[in-house]
Amino acid sequence: MDAELIREQFLSRLAHYKDESLKHLIAAIPDREPKKHLYDLVSIYPLRGGKGFRPGLCLSTCKIFGGTESEAMNSAIAIELYHNAFLVHDDIEDESEDRRGFPTLHAEYGVPIALNVGDAMNALAIMPLMNNILSLGPQLTWQVFKEIQHMALESVEGQAMELGWRSENNCKLDDGDYLRMILKKTCWYTCIHPIRIGAVIGSRGQVNPDIFNRFGYYLGAAFQIQDDLLNLEGEKAKYGKEIGGDIQEGKRTLMLIHLMNSGSAEENEEIKNYLLLPRAERTPEKVQQIMDYMRKYDCLNYGRIAARNLAGAALKEFYTLFGAFPETEEKQFIENMIIYMINRDK
Amino acid sequence: MDAELIREQFLSRLAHYKDESLKHLIAAIPDREPKKHLYDLVSIYPLRGGKGFRPGLCLSTCKIFGGTESEAMNSAIAIELYHNAFLVHDDIEDESEDRRGFPTLHAEYGVPIALNVGDAMNALAIMPLMNNILSLGPQLTWQVFKEIQHMALESVEGQAMELGWRSENNCKLDDGDYLRMILKKTCWYTCIHPIRIGAVIGSRGQVNPDIFNRFGYYLGAAFQIQDDLLNLEGEKAKYGKEIGGDIQEGKRTLMLIHLMNSGSAEENEEIKNYLLLPRAERTPEKVQQIMDYMRKYDCLNYGRIAARNLAGAALKEFYTLFGAFPETEEKQFIENMIIYMINRDK
Repeated sequence: MDAELIREQFLSRLAHYKDESLKHLIAAIPDREPKKHLYDLVSIYPLRGGKGFRPGLCLSTCKIFGGTESEAMNSAIAIELYHNAFLVHDDIEDESEDRRGFPTLHAEYGVPIALNVGDAMNALAIMPLMNNILSLGPQLTWQVFKEIQHMALESVEGQAMELGWRSENNCKLDDGDYLRMILKKTCWYTCIHPIRIGAVIGSRGQVNPDIFNRFGYYLGAAFQIQDDLLNLEGEKAKYGKEIGGDIQEGKRTLMLIHLMNSGSAEENEEIKNYLLLPRAERTPEKVQQIMDYMRKYDCLNYGRIAARNLAGAALKEFYTLFGAFPETEEKQFIENMIIYMINRDK
Repeated sequence: MDAELIREQFLSRLAHYKDESLKHLIAAIPDREPKKHLYDLVSIYPLRGGKGFRPGLCLSTCKIFGGTESEAMNSAIAIELYHNAFLVHDDIEDESEDRRGFPTLHAEYGVPIALNVGDAMNALAIMPLMNNILSLGPQLTWQVFKEIQHMALESVEGQAMELGWRSENNCKLDDGDYLRMILKKTCWYTCIHPIRIGAVIGSRGQVNPDIFNRFGYYLGAAFQIQDDLLNLEGEKAKYGKEIGGDIQEGKRTLMLIHLMNSGSAEENEEIKNYLLLPRAERTPEKVQQIMDYMRKYDCLNYGRIAARNLAGAALKEFYTLFGAFPETEEKQFIENMIIYMINRDK
């Protein structure tokens, strides 16, 4: 089968998971007041169309391990609600302007209302987890709760690390710091927990979810580095955010960290001073200068290689974990996702 | 027993509940990194010393209904964590400057870190609720979860109502609107749910918690109106916030709503225009002008009477609900709290 066909098969499967989980997520939003300043806004980010990686991983893993999509659906939409809450709050914290091709929620409705909508999403995520009791029984419901609790804490810890670096203008970071941060901030909730939860539900608690941690970490790290690469070199129309936005936000990406470890003392001083500027003073010219330095030190290529290596490691883990399972559509989906993670353009 | 003695007894009991729950809350904060930008900051608001109303209501009600303090402790600290998360986010949303006598968390550490600390508190609140399973068993644990889920949703709904009024500069509100808003924003999480949860645990699920809704509503509404009165006429040293801060924030208190329904067309236009100003342009002189109008239309007295009537209604409900119970310290505590709510100066 040629690469283009594989890609199309993968995307159609991903769209299926996304559409199914979106439908259930929308149905989980209370149909009552206050709508205008709360519940109508909860669906805005989800309806803009996330990629659906998280529900896709959760639902497909559940099926691989013997369960059905519908058994994992409550958990998948809880993860998706947490994810969207995280995006809303993250956008406020980063003062981001665009999300999925449109203004961020706080840019459109103001920080107070957006912040509260994020809180509502977090509160709403508990509901489908409680509904699990009807389909999964008390023990599995409880185990999923524990997974979600761990996921929520890891995410705020990773976020605190990143925000701490920015608030202290930390310019002495290395690849290990970066990988530890995205393990916490991205990998747990984007890959590790969706897979763990899918496997726990599918196997009715018979699988030890710890076996997936390494795989989810490699996959999530490849995903995040690719995401940061797209922010530097993608097309805005596809990517949905301002290109170079991460540089303007002072985000410590692998590429920026590589630059800070490659430049001359003088260049590093310039970068450090740039990062000290208030956001409004980080002009497009200054952002361009950082981009030029990144090109000079081949930082994008460095990131591309890292993402590719991580995807390779994920692939190896995948064969170890899933090798013995029959070649189902779901198994193919996860395998293809690994490749897609580093080839995607949005 | 004279009033001063009753007051002292009440305050010492309140301090006991506050100290016990604070001790457990602090112990529930993970002792691991990241500390500086996360876990060290989680305890800042709690350590500044809230009043302890919420744990007090939860722990005392549990005991009245046959339970022990320690059985309700996990739930009390979960409520307290939610409360503090709510304060941190509320302070960001309101651009408040002071909280409990010190700068607000975002004023000191910036919006991004403070917002994330609030998210961490919400995530941490789930942990003690999960620990309930060891002491309360699965059914009660589950029931408390449902209570907390409802509490969280009511609070964000109330917050959305208030933020919506502000963002639309709604000046056509009446007492009913105000009471519906604080029922959602304040009463559920400050009074109704702490009492419901205490009673459910204490009675091992035998009491129908709905019987407390009216009492908790009256008590919470009296509390909130008194709080807003203190913001207008209290002493900063005791109250811990800037006096007149609510006017500066454009908060729709009962007193402001009364003013907007009492002033001349011309005065109302002036008030409306004041509320349209960006916060920075709401000078102390302009705040003073609104205060003067409030005095002119006796708005503070109007609020005082409303708080007193609500406290009276709470007292009547209290006798209906708790009349048949023996005269224990805990029962006295709740009775005295009703009076304290409208007489407190901080």
